[in-house]
Amino acid sequence: MKPLAERFSQLWSSLAPIGRHGSSGGYRRFAWTPADSELRAWFAEQADQRGMLYETDRNGNQWAWWGDPGPDAVVTGSHLDSVPDGGAFDGPLGVVSGFLAVEELRGQGLRPDRPVAVVNCVDEEGARFGVACMGSRLLTGAIDTDAARGLLDADGVSLAAAMNAAGVDPDGLGRDEQVMARIGVFVELHVEQGRALADLNAAVGVATSIWPHGRWRFDFRGEANHAGTTRLVDRRDPMLPFAASVLAAREAATQAGAVATLGKAVIVPNGANAIPSAVNGWLDARAADDATLERLVGEVTAAGERSAAEHGVGLAVSRESYSPVALFDGALRDRLSAVLGGAPRLPTGAGHDAGILSAHVPAAMLFVRNPTGVSHSPAEHAEATDCVAGVEALAEVLRELVCR
Amino acid sequence: MKPLAERFSQLWSSLAPIGRHGSSGGYRRFAWTPADSELRAWFAEQADQRGMLYETDRNGNQWAWWGDPGPDAVVTGSHLDSVPDGGAFDGPLGVVSGFLAVEELRGQGLRPDRPVAVVNCVDEEGARFGVACMGSRLLTGAIDTDAARGLLDADGVSLAAAMNAAGVDPDGLGRDEQVMARIGVFVELHVEQGRALADLNAAVGVATSIWPHGRWRFDFRGEANHAGTTRLVDRRDPMLPFAASVLAAREAATQAGAVATLGKAVIVPNGANAIPSAVNGWLDARAADDATLERLVGEVTAAGERSAAEHGVGLAVSRESYSPVALFDGALRDRLSAVLGGAPRLPTGAGHDAGILSAHVPAAMLFVRNPTGVSHSPAEHAEATDCVAGVEALAEVLRELVCR
Repeated sequence: MKPLAERFSQLWSSLAPIGRHGSSGGYRRFAWTPADSELRAWFAEQADQRGMLYETDRNGNQWAWWGDPGPDAVVTGSHLDSVPDGGAFDGPLGVVSGFLAVEELRGQGLRPDRPVAVVNCVDEEGARFGVACMGSRLLTGAIDTDAARGLLDADGVSLAAAMNAAGVDPDGLGRDEQVMARIGVFVELHVEQGRALADLNAAVGVATSIWPHGRWRFDFRGEANHAGTTRLVDRRDPMLPFAASVLAAREAATQAGAVATLGKAVIVPNGANAIPSAVNGWLDARAADDATLERLVGEVTAAGERSAAEHGVGLAVSRESYSPVALFDGALRDRLSAVLGGAPRLPTGAGHDAGILSAHVPAAMLFVRNPTGVSHSPAEHAEATDCVAGVEALAEVLRELVCR
Repeated sequence: MKPLAERFSQLWSSLAPIGRHGSSGGYRRFAWTPADSELRAWFAEQADQRGMLYETDRNGNQWAWWGDPGPDAVVTGSHLDSVPDGGAFDGPLGVVSGFLAVEELRGQGLRPDRPVAVVNCVDEEGARFGVACMGSRLLTGAIDTDAARGLLDADGVSLAAAMNAAGVDPDGLGRDEQVMARIGVFVELHVEQGRALADLNAAVGVATSIWPHGRWRFDFRGEANHAGTTRLVDRRDPMLPFAASVLAAREAATQAGAVATLGKAVIVPNGANAIPSAVNGWLDARAADDATLERLVGEVTAAGERSAAEHGVGLAVSRESYSPVALFDGALRDRLSAVLGGAPRLPTGAGHDAGILSAHVPAAMLFVRNPTGVSHSPAEHAEATDCVAGVEALAEVLRELVCR
């Protein structure tokens, strides 16, 4: 067998061209698109090349089995899809590392006491239909199946129609007891999306929790008018309280030791010489615990309302999504950290399939160092040596778990 | 001949359906689109119905002549295009009033000593290609023709290609000496875009000047990143200095007794869980004199730069357009005001074709009362009785000018 670094590089390269976007250099790998089909074919081929039994479940998640599928399996993996113009590592690193970790253990002649599986959870980013972790939500029953089938992409195509077009029957969607009964433990390896490991000078870390996080929509409604002829006192300009909310969100997050972002806005009519009639902004906020997050959002809302009132603008705030804190299994986390020689433990602000599954089965996450912390961007990166260290750590962890 | 009020209502109604947008109730009449072609056909038909000679000039402006086209003509008119979701009155009121004023004078048996023309200046709002008063700028040579031809709309279609598609040859664009030599005086009637006449309790007023005004583009360049996992200290979020600039513009305008607006922004990638890589904002600013305007823009730029530096964001400010103060011909203004029994005089913050032409020929403007001052909005309105008073005033003014 070739050295691991060489095998990593080879396997990584085979994924590189799929769904790459020319001008941005980033990836557009959205669920149930042709790019996604290519990724899924790649996954099936990897299973085949390793003599692993390949299956898809009723929700479109892909499985590659080492040993017969059965209960109490040790499952690893992540996702292959991306955000718009996302990086190469977010998701694929976990799938690639899963295949290579299995390869390592087999190369060492290990005979596991439990079945082992590598999984590709479909549609983790939710870039196309707006709901993240769709594959794991459906599998665990965390989302209404009719609502899921009816979700529309930007072109008005429903999730059901998109699955049908990709050759997968959407009638099968929903909690899958059979599959759930097989999962004994789930370990997801993922590139870190911040710089905690870089600051700690560590290649690999173990997750403690996923911060509670949510998305709130701020609808500011003013009055369209001419930017050149409307006196300031006659204006009802919704851009002003939007701007005040942007600054308030940063201030409140700083005070709370949390993060808050207004990264998306829709401005109507968005003309250079027009006072807008409406500005809709989206607040993404995450904090260490639910109470802190609630307080933070309350402060931003209050600041928005104060400024809206001052400018004669209406404000309606609605919560579009909310995920409470996900605490990973403490015993499992301690065991993995110990196996890895005391790897550092860190929380994360990002949602993951492991977070969804953690409500149902013991779950854990390994993070691989991200030198810049840049994520969801073409510039997202991890050094090859750290990726190899990640595979080795994952193999150690799987060895610990499969040997009873 | 039917009463003027009835003819106004009839002519006004014939324009109402063209380019109307269903859900907003406003108008989307953009240059060289199918809606624009309908408007142009409407104009040609009005000329035809009145036995007026119809012409288009090399820049696409439409002309309807009462009497033979020739030098020293008295020209009235305005434009038929609109901003996105604009009102019915901004532009069309001046064209409709021009046709009806000619009708009034002919009905009174007047035989003018000078040619009279009604003009539809093409693409006044600049909604599609970003440059306002395009028809009068081209006609007077106030814009480089190659630059104009190359302007792109949001779909990447050039002005030249759009004109070609509408059946007009863009090779003819540029200053037109022949047409300019014909214009003896230009009077544009327009719905007021503020509430000065309403506050003065007057149906019609005369313009003194157009405030200097311009558009500046603020390009904030930050770094795309994950909204959930990037620590605040690691962020370079361009939305923050954009927001600071929005608030600074309002503050600076208040201090200067001017107006300043950031009503348009393009956010990249504009995702709810993404720190933007870039925010481009457009500042529209207008003040009573050039020095005040320069100071105001300097203050907004300084505030943007301070906040950008604080957040590790780059800022490039570029002036996209600038129109110095346009003072209308004093003698002409006094004459018109006297003819109208001492009609009030008022400045305006909005640009107009009359402002462009005023640098080359004696030009004047009449304003018709706008009860709410709302403009560039579906809610823009003028009472029918005031519109009729506007036609009568314009007819008086034309009578005064055509009889030597």
